[in-house]
Amino acid sequence: MRRFVRLGALDDVRRLLDRMHPADMVQILRTLAPAERKAFTDVLLAHERAGEVLADLPEPQVEEILVQVSNERIASLVSRLAPDKAADLLRLLFEDRVVAILKLLDEKTAAILDRLMTYGPETAGGMMTTRFLALDRHTRVGEAVSRIRSEPEAEMVFYLYVVDETQRLEGVVSLRQLVLAGQDQELREIMNPKAIRVRVDTPRAEVADVISRYNLLAVPVVDASNVLCGIVTVDDAIDAITDETTREVYRMAGLNTEDRIATPPYESVRRRLPWMILNLATAILASWVISFFEASIAQVVALATLMPIVASMGGIGATQASTVIVRGIALGEIDFSSARRALLKEILVGMTIGVATGLVMALTAFVWKGNPWLGLIICLAMILNLLVAGASGAAIPLLLKWLKLDPALGSSVIVTTFTDCFGFMSFLGLGTLLLSHLK
Amino acid sequence: MRRFVRLGALDDVRRLLDRMHPADMVQILRTLAPAERKAFTDVLLAHERAGEVLADLPEPQVEEILVQVSNERIASLVSRLAPDKAADLLRLLFEDRVVAILKLLDEKTAAILDRLMTYGPETAGGMMTTRFLALDRHTRVGEAVSRIRSEPEAEMVFYLYVVDETQRLEGVVSLRQLVLAGQDQELREIMNPKAIRVRVDTPRAEVADVISRYNLLAVPVVDASNVLCGIVTVDDAIDAITDETTREVYRMAGLNTEDRIATPPYESVRRRLPWMILNLATAILASWVISFFEASIAQVVALATLMPIVASMGGIGATQASTVIVRGIALGEIDFSSARRALLKEILVGMTIGVATGLVMALTAFVWKGNPWLGLIICLAMILNLLVAGASGAAIPLLLKWLKLDPALGSSVIVTTFTDCFGFMSFLGLGTLLLSHLK
Repeated sequence: MRRFVRLGALDDVRRLLDRMHPADMVQILRTLAPAERKAFTDVLLAHERAGEVLADLPEPQVEEILVQVSNERIASLVSRLAPDKAADLLRLLFEDRVVAILKLLDEKTAAILDRLMTYGPETAGGMMTTRFLALDRHTRVGEAVSRIRSEPEAEMVFYLYVVDETQRLEGVVSLRQLVLAGQDQELREIMNPKAIRVRVDTPRAEVADVISRYNLLAVPVVDASNVLCGIVTVDDAIDAITDETTREVYRMAGLNTEDRIATPPYESVRRRLPWMILNLATAILASWVISFFEASIAQVVALATLMPIVASMGGIGATQASTVIVRGIALGEIDFSSARRALLKEILVGMTIGVATGLVMALTAFVWKGNPWLGLIICLAMILNLLVAGASGAAIPLLLKWLKLDPALGSSVIVTTFTDCFGFMSFLGLGTLLLSHLK
Repeated sequence: MRRFVRLGALDDVRRLLDRMHPADMVQILRTLAPAERKAFTDVLLAHERAGEVLADLPEPQVEEILVQVSNERIASLVSRLAPDKAADLLRLLFEDRVVAILKLLDEKTAAILDRLMTYGPETAGGMMTTRFLALDRHTRVGEAVSRIRSEPEAEMVFYLYVVDETQRLEGVVSLRQLVLAGQDQELREIMNPKAIRVRVDTPRAEVADVISRYNLLAVPVVDASNVLCGIVTVDDAIDAITDETTREVYRMAGLNTEDRIATPPYESVRRRLPWMILNLATAILASWVISFFEASIAQVVALATLMPIVASMGGIGATQASTVIVRGIALGEIDFSSARRALLKEILVGMTIGVATGLVMALTAFVWKGNPWLGLIICLAMILNLLVAGASGAAIPLLLKWLKLDPALGSSVIVTTFTDCFGFMSFLGLGTLLLSHLK
């Protein structure tokens, strides 16, 4: 495929596209060089399944493509897409373009998309599709089956939703139950009335969690008065889980989720710079701690040589502790009492590791620098700092969670500032106290 | 629930369990204190859905529970579970217990489980269930529907698999296509012959990726001669994605995946210690680099005060670069040519951020220490070190990937060792060269 693109054999590209799954087109777009991507995109946009490909691409890439496409073309792509995907695409455009495009669509589609766009993209409302099948509870099985036959558009109909006269959700019937039931039974007899549901404003991560926890293929979305508004399907839950993962990993490193491999360098610099400036400030803080001990360092230079070891081990210990806690929070393994236990455990683990590595380091320092007191000091400082590392590594994400902030965001910068400053302070402080033994 | 457990009102607990979804029981078990957990587990194990709960718990917790349970009890739990979940449970037991338990089961179940256990738990074979429906290609739709009616056990039958006489996979029919088709059509007429499939030895992450990329509810698993062996359902794909995420996050922090919040402290210490010792070794290496410049530090102590800033900024820059690359690899966004571009980009981004933060730091150092040369030196060292940070942060995960190793594993330790050593070397080296201007 790539060879055809490079050779400009666009007819061959077109032929290949016809035989391809949209997911594979996405894969190709992701790995093409910028120049090749341009040529490929042009062919792709003329293809009838282009919408599906766009819906699966990372947002910045889609934005880049959409600015080059006419409103008419977008309207035609959007009209062929599932409403949830269509709304996601439109959300990436400026308000005035959206208005113009909605005018080009038929009235019903435009109304649905307009409503879907009012929901936040990070909520069930923003994830849901309106292509579902809702039938009255008195519908008979035979009739329900013919209704399915007549609505080939409904997305992944593996559940039928049963509603009352006012569209309130009463229950769910799986396609499987439908096949197993007698033709004359009413839906309310075979439905599961305790169907798990989410609200339009349920956060995306929670929707994904419900689908994954209860092994559902789709979950119905209702408004405040239990009126069925849409469904979220398992494939969107998987996308949400993948996105949340990226967000967690990225936040721990202080990265913005839109900073990806394909992001242009100046964009990446712009997004990373604030975090780096913040970290520079914390590094200056740690350096300021050191400056109080300059007199001691001038007398015993070995203190300067060894001090980064104390700080670095603390940083790594704290990162391990906070990773375990942040992941535990993400997986829902933590509540109030387990949080206290987890904190105590991390302190104990930190201290024990401090003793073990501290002893190794004491011996190393003694052999290297020939002074047993130096060994004693670094051993004590490491124990203290790894204890603090365990405590802060566990406490800070928990505190952020308790403050209803993202535990992953900022954990690392706060935690390592703590261990850097405390590490330098304990080691250089002990060194200053026992200075007479070191000279 | 927790109050009932604490009060020892076990009859109430039992009653509540009857009305509960197994997923909710898992949630409760996860958050109970160890003492309460014991009481709860006793009641739970007598419950008929205990197997489903065990199948959803983290492995170490299940192992802990299973040692206290008789073989008869396990056999009865296992016989009620889907074969893939049952095999997962048995895998956690010692060989001789497994043999004893298999003898207690009926011959057919024992044979299936015995075969499933031969596949690696990290492959499609280890994830698949054998509860699927495979019918001959000449079966008529009406007959297929009655077959579904007679096999209520088949897990999540939303697809029917079509096979030839030798059980080779010919195609797939969705339950939806079955409902839409005429009663007298043969399955081969309505099936999708290009059904996406995986091999028994396909790695777990790849199976999950196929299901998620093509939005499947289940994927058929075939052996080397295309004989249908089982199916992997979307809920297992979600579990696999969650596990892979934890693994990636954990590996970047040098943690073992079994080191969770509920892991006992001594276990955590044992698992973390090797990584900490490795990091101690790299910290000593960095400290050894510093020791070459002790003479310069003794003359200009400000060098010691400022040097951790250079190393720390490099470490953070490198972590950001490697996070972007590791995530990109996990999401399949990287191939040979995009890897080269990504590497060049990270070098450029690192250098630019180095210039920006270096200038800020130069000014700070000048104002603080009153020496413009010190500012110049730290600025140059930061630019160099952030350039190296970008290069190594991108290159090392790519190299690990190219060597067919896990890019997340070890990236952080290698990368930060690099930036620590190089940071100290460049800053102290420049400081030594220009020492006369600093005194």
